Amino acid sequence: MEETLLMIPGPTKVAPRVLKAMSDAVMNHRSAQFADILTEVNEMMSEVFQTENPSYTITGSGTAAMEAAVGNILNKGDKILNIVGGKFGERFAQIAEANGGNSVKLDVEWGKAVNPEDVKNILEEDDEIKAVTLVHNETSTGVASPIEEVGKIVKDYNALYVVDTVSSLGGDDVAVDDYNIDICVTGSQKCLAAPPGMAAITVSDDAWDVINKVDSNSYYLDVRKYKKYAEHTPSETPYTPSVSLMYAMREALNMVMEEGLEARIERHKLAASATRNAVKAMGLELFADEDVSSTTVTAVKMPEGVTDKDMRGTMRDKYGIVLAGGQDHLKGNVFRIGHMGNVNYRDLVVTMAALEMTLKGLGMDICLGNGVAAVEEAYLIG
Amino acid sequence: MEETLLMIPGPTKVAPRVLKAMSDAVMNHRSAQFADILTEVNEMMSEVFQTENPSYTITGSGTAAMEAAVGNILNKGDKILNIVGGKFGERFAQIAEANGGNSVKLDVEWGKAVNPEDVKNILEEDDEIKAVTLVHNETSTGVASPIEEVGKIVKDYNALYVVDTVSSLGGDDVAVDDYNIDICVTGSQKCLAAPPGMAAITVSDDAWDVINKVDSNSYYLDVRKYKKYAEHTPSETPYTPSVSLMYAMREALNMVMEEGLEARIERHKLAASATRNAVKAMGLELFADEDVSSTTVTAVKMPEGVTDKDMRGTMRDKYGIVLAGGQDHLKGNVFRIGHMGNVNYRDLVVTMAALEMTLKGLGMDICLGNGVAAVEEAYLIG
Repeated sequence: MEETLLMIPGPTKVAPRVLKAMSDAVMNHRSAQFADILTEVNEMMSEVFQTENPSYTITGSGTAAMEAAVGNILNKGDKILNIVGGKFGERFAQIAEANGGNSVKLDVEWGKAVNPEDVKNILEEDDEIKAVTLVHNETSTGVASPIEEVGKIVKDYNALYVVDTVSSLGGDDVAVDDYNIDICVTGSQKCLAAPPGMAAITVSDDAWDVINKVDSNSYYLDVRKYKKYAEHTPSETPYTPSVSLMYAMREALNMVMEEGLEARIERHKLAASATRNAVKAMGLELFADEDVSSTTVTAVKMPEGVTDKDMRGTMRDKYGIVLAGGQDHLKGNVFRIGHMGNVNYRDLVVTMAALEMTLKGLGMDICLGNGVAAVEEAYLIG
Repeated sequence: MEETLLMIPGPTKVAPRVLKAMSDAVMNHRSAQFADILTEVNEMMSEVFQTENPSYTITGSGTAAMEAAVGNILNKGDKILNIVGGKFGERFAQIAEANGGNSVKLDVEWGKAVNPEDVKNILEEDDEIKAVTLVHNETSTGVASPIEEVGKIVKDYNALYVVDTVSSLGGDDVAVDDYNIDICVTGSQKCLAAPPGMAAITVSDDAWDVINKVDSNSYYLDVRKYKKYAEHTPSETPYTPSVSLMYAMREALNMVMEEGLEARIERHKLAASATRNAVKAMGLELFADEDVSSTTVTAVKMPEGVTDKDMRGTMRDKYGIVLAGGQDHLKGNVFRIGHMGNVNYRDLVVTMAALEMTLKGLGMDICLGNGVAAVEEAYLIG
């Protein structure tokens, strides 16, 4: 059997050259040689974040960086506005509460995008709000939030703007400086296509002003330490980093640079529209509003009469393709196709072919080839 | 030039078969296939910890696990006794303070081991102390603490016993259940000889009783979540784990099992005594009291007239061997030889040969071959 094809919203398929780089001999993490790699990775991260500010890598999941973003700016009782339209938006609120913050939630219906005016109204009425969090790409619903528009609003208020781009950076438009983002975080295993286990964060000067006045209640995720050690000669991390993953990140980022960030984002946009057209051509329904749909993951309503277990089970066991299920209350009601990282037309062609066979095999009235044709159509034009 | 030989107290040399395992294709972390690997790793970790309790892996540095150990048992203002005889003992105190705890420090002169009676006296006088932390192997000084003896004392008091075995587990005697340890933590990159970036923790029932009554102020390091997700079917981690490092951990732990834990510890003890005898045979002085010296790292006083820069620089640049320098106030005054993980007699022979050449080259009156002979002697008998 061929290798399983991961069509989930992370971890994504890792290129052989990245896996190869990762298997190099482990080196001393406090050496000039490692400092060069660390510096290179941090600098490339700033380039991908499109910021003039330094970036830092954290050994941990994307969630670790989300906590570093929020935990370092809140004193006990500080108010933070968490925009919640899915599982990861909710996670920011939970992290804020766990860190002693007072979470004010702006609930957005799952599958819809936040209306920036609603953010404005809340900030207008409550001048105690210290920060606003927004998840750019809500992988649980397949919605891309209007991070640029919200950024234009937040900058008129005395609040920091914290954005999670874990599953969008490198695959969708994220311009940290232009969008007025103060703290932006991401993970290694999504659009950057490195293995999971490393996260990154970038922090604006305004955010440092706040951070320096806060008593961090975390030791491991205290961003001041990451800054201090990065500024050492040679550059270091405060704690022993995942040396092997740093090799992998460098190679994965080299691939981003070789492709060019703009071309990479265009490739993701094309994969997204091909996916949407293909599932619609099969007669399936998208979960998220199409005008705010994600460029990296597509959520599809589970067709009537088909169970998640049968559908994703057949895709996996018979056709070797892994799709993601729904999360929280969407469990069983949607499935999700990840198209991020090194995704290309071949991945989508085989995914749609397998999906057609799977659904037809489960008794649905499917015209074989329609979904695949839609992918071809998209790439022919694109 | 040959590959650099890492003779530092972690990261240690990683075996080719572990590097190879790590470079396998990344899989879905929420799948039955990954659950098997995770379960295998967690179970092998419990075997190495010598505990009947479950163990959990955390994607992060050893410090992340130290914080998970302390942060989850402290409410604001709770008293904790931190035994501090080096940089990592101090780190436990800093973590306790960062997490709102009230750290009571028992300071131990660097290079000496704690006197268990001193712990008893403090616990006897202060019944508000909720936990005692001890670093088993203080890599900054080369001292192994009497964790069994301190465990016998702590069990008579209403306090949890938290032990950091980051740089000893798999290389020195650690019997979590027999020593009455409630929370024990370790890292991947020391005696277990996997790459850095993964940590592990095991928790006793008594500790869970405390943890369940505490408001954790961490989201990422909330151990209740690791327990809950490990108990899922299939077994999971709460956040996307470092899949590649999990492959590496499994392979590294397979190697531990193949060698046998007892044989592995004996091998470390032999390497430690060979190292101590060799540096003494060269006329150098050990930093730590020899009767409490570490089995995994040896701290040596920097000889008169030789600078750290010249000595370690020559070792590295001319002979390709990396030694560690002193930390904090020991910077420049000691150097440290790590002998952990896959260390064997060949590593020590070349290290001592290079050290002899280096010191003689720097003008010291060294009789070439004496240190190497001491290594041979140790292994001939051992």
